[in-house]
Amino acid sequence: MRMYDVIKKKRDGGVLSSEEIRAFVEGYTDGSIPDYQAAALCMAIYFRGMNDEETTELTLAVRDSGEKLDVSGIKGLRVDKHSTGGVGDKTSLVVAPIVASLGLTVAKMSGRGLGHTGGTVDKLEAIPGFCTDLAVSEFERIVNETGIAIVGQSATLAPADKKLYALRDVTATVDSMPLIASSIMGKKLAADDDCIVLDVKTGSGSFMKSVEDSRTLAKLMVAIGKRAGKRISALITDMDRPLGYAVGNSLEVVEAIETLQGKGPEDLLELSLALAAQILFLADKGTLEECRAMAQDAITSGKALDTFARMVAAQGGNADFIYHPENFAKAPYTREVKVTESGYIASVDTEKYGLASLLLGAGRNTKEDEIDLSAGYLLKKKTGDAVKAGDTLAVLYASREDLFDAAERTLLNATTITADAPEKRPLIFETI
Amino acid sequence: MRMYDVIKKKRDGGVLSSEEIRAFVEGYTDGSIPDYQAAALCMAIYFRGMNDEETTELTLAVRDSGEKLDVSGIKGLRVDKHSTGGVGDKTSLVVAPIVASLGLTVAKMSGRGLGHTGGTVDKLEAIPGFCTDLAVSEFERIVNETGIAIVGQSATLAPADKKLYALRDVTATVDSMPLIASSIMGKKLAADDDCIVLDVKTGSGSFMKSVEDSRTLAKLMVAIGKRAGKRISALITDMDRPLGYAVGNSLEVVEAIETLQGKGPEDLLELSLALAAQILFLADKGTLEECRAMAQDAITSGKALDTFARMVAAQGGNADFIYHPENFAKAPYTREVKVTESGYIASVDTEKYGLASLLLGAGRNTKEDEIDLSAGYLLKKKTGDAVKAGDTLAVLYASREDLFDAAERTLLNATTITADAPEKRPLIFETI
Repeated sequence: MRMYDVIKKKRDGGVLSSEEIRAFVEGYTDGSIPDYQAAALCMAIYFRGMNDEETTELTLAVRDSGEKLDVSGIKGLRVDKHSTGGVGDKTSLVVAPIVASLGLTVAKMSGRGLGHTGGTVDKLEAIPGFCTDLAVSEFERIVNETGIAIVGQSATLAPADKKLYALRDVTATVDSMPLIASSIMGKKLAADDDCIVLDVKTGSGSFMKSVEDSRTLAKLMVAIGKRAGKRISALITDMDRPLGYAVGNSLEVVEAIETLQGKGPEDLLELSLALAAQILFLADKGTLEECRAMAQDAITSGKALDTFARMVAAQGGNADFIYHPENFAKAPYTREVKVTESGYIASVDTEKYGLASLLLGAGRNTKEDEIDLSAGYLLKKKTGDAVKAGDTLAVLYASREDLFDAAERTLLNATTITADAPEKRPLIFETI
Repeated sequence: MRMYDVIKKKRDGGVLSSEEIRAFVEGYTDGSIPDYQAAALCMAIYFRGMNDEETTELTLAVRDSGEKLDVSGIKGLRVDKHSTGGVGDKTSLVVAPIVASLGLTVAKMSGRGLGHTGGTVDKLEAIPGFCTDLAVSEFERIVNETGIAIVGQSATLAPADKKLYALRDVTATVDSMPLIASSIMGKKLAADDDCIVLDVKTGSGSFMKSVEDSRTLAKLMVAIGKRAGKRISALITDMDRPLGYAVGNSLEVVEAIETLQGKGPEDLLELSLALAAQILFLADKGTLEECRAMAQDAITSGKALDTFARMVAAQGGNADFIYHPENFAKAPYTREVKVTESGYIASVDTEKYGLASLLLGAGRNTKEDEIDLSAGYLLKKKTGDAVKAGDTLAVLYASREDLFDAAERTLLNATTITADAPEKRPLIFETI
């Protein structure tokens, strides 16, 4: 098999065989296929697409590209939830403790990622002492004792994805459904959970701007998961505004804790319960309604919060913070951003809201950037809210005062205020 | 300007600006733009195409990518003829002496190329002593004294094309009209001739299999040449069968000499006269009919042959061979290939005919291959000819007997014999 022929076949609209796809992924991972041929193939895939069989094969090849992580010592039904990413999305910190407290196993490997805030493991590191870099044996022990542990993703997990993503990022071949789906699912399947619930975001703060594209991606990923023998479903959920009110690493942990304490924001609670219910349902814990009631009860009873605290303690963190989130370190500087018009917040550009968080130091632009865990902002008004000129839109937190101007300007420019209230947009569009 | 944005713009069907195209070609030539981004852009161009302005800009950027060759010391109106390549195509060796003998200046820089035989400079090296590697001052002197010189193309001439072509060759992005046109015309314009006649081949032995594609390419290249201020035209000519009867380097030189002696094959003579007439016409030597008559007279009078002999002598070659082509060295081994059926040669796969020549050692598979200048074959029957089983189709020449079997099989497999005579196909389809 010559890589030239594989590129030409796809360029001409052909269907790649399983052998061709495997040879490409293996050859690209081991360096025998050069970047330029991989780039040409990615662009051909961008234009010609891939059918479900091809996309599944690509996903499985990505899954199999690294060392096989042996987690056979972990007991129980392993479940996971994965979000395509959005601003203020801290649902993993709520959902994982809920389902673990109900007897499911959460052995979560999470990426750090680039973006407006850190990933789940970065956020957890805002808890003093919390360690996300555990030996496999330690990871297994904690999962088996507490039902839950969350660690950073190993570099040897699906390395083809890392290399391919870096290439797509500089060759304008990121926006391709089969490439997106195989990237997300390749990593997910490498972790080898039994049940997977995908939270596919849609809207201005999401990779997928339209519900239709989100649906296509969700269906594709669910199809791949099923072909790979997984119990899997997906929710399509709103990212046309931030989730909850907190954006920034420690601020988000606090909001997640408040949600586990039963006093979180309505949208975050609602989405967390829906995702937890989906996981429980996939794990055969009852009907969807029963599962949702169980998830609600895990919060009301305090079981989920206790589970979270146990995990924190087991991973070296100070569990007191879980019961006293007011103790989290605050950034030294704050600024109130005020709206200058009266009316209703008709819409926000959520991607720009994410940028404001990055500007405050809460995220990473490059892999080498240091995250400021205490930076970020708390929203006071969100889409649909009535505002008067002079009302506070958000309170910004940063370690340097000179970061505020750009973030303030970005937030205000990203906020559209009109005389009339906007139509209400659903939080959850559909289940796939 | 970021290369990423250029790729994305073309991917999304946008029109690249002159600055974007220049930045790409310059950056790719100097190595600041990596192969993988160039490959992604080439594939995007493959799918999205380029308009005439973009293609011209790309051509001019390729033209300008190397050192400017200073040939300002060359006198007269400089003319050139360029063929897109075909089996048995030795017209340059006939046309160049004709037009030079009529007062035009031929300062030809020709590539060696890969393929079934060598390029024009390889063929000329079959003449004992002939040197194709001259210093610029020597090249100028010979052109000014004899009106004609033919040398190998400098590596510094349009280096972007060399680098881009090598990349396209391994990324399945060769078959793109704007990329083909800018590659050919970028090199042609770098040589900076005043009048250019393109011989765009069409048919089974050509890069362009259909007359329609050949017409599209011809129109595009003529448009580019005109935008660049050149007098230019193109003939679309048949490559559904070899041109003439000789295929192989020294065999083709002999056939070209015979044509200049007025005893060449009809198709080679006809095409050579048509191309020479086009050049003379562009150079304002008269009406097309008058120009054709002048070209014919240059042969009949022996002027063109004498000009060829003078060039050979000036470039260090033995001019006696031009008047006594029977003295050219013959390959030590020959084999007659005989047809096994009776009927008419209905069609041949000319590309495979080219392969047979390569198999005998007459061409290069890779840049490092040595050409056997005496290898090749003389056809005895061509498309349209009646044959009886046992008739000789071709006489093969090689330096090793073990090369014959594969070449013989290839020629026979590429020859279709039917009971009825095929329709006659024109030699020249149209002038553009």
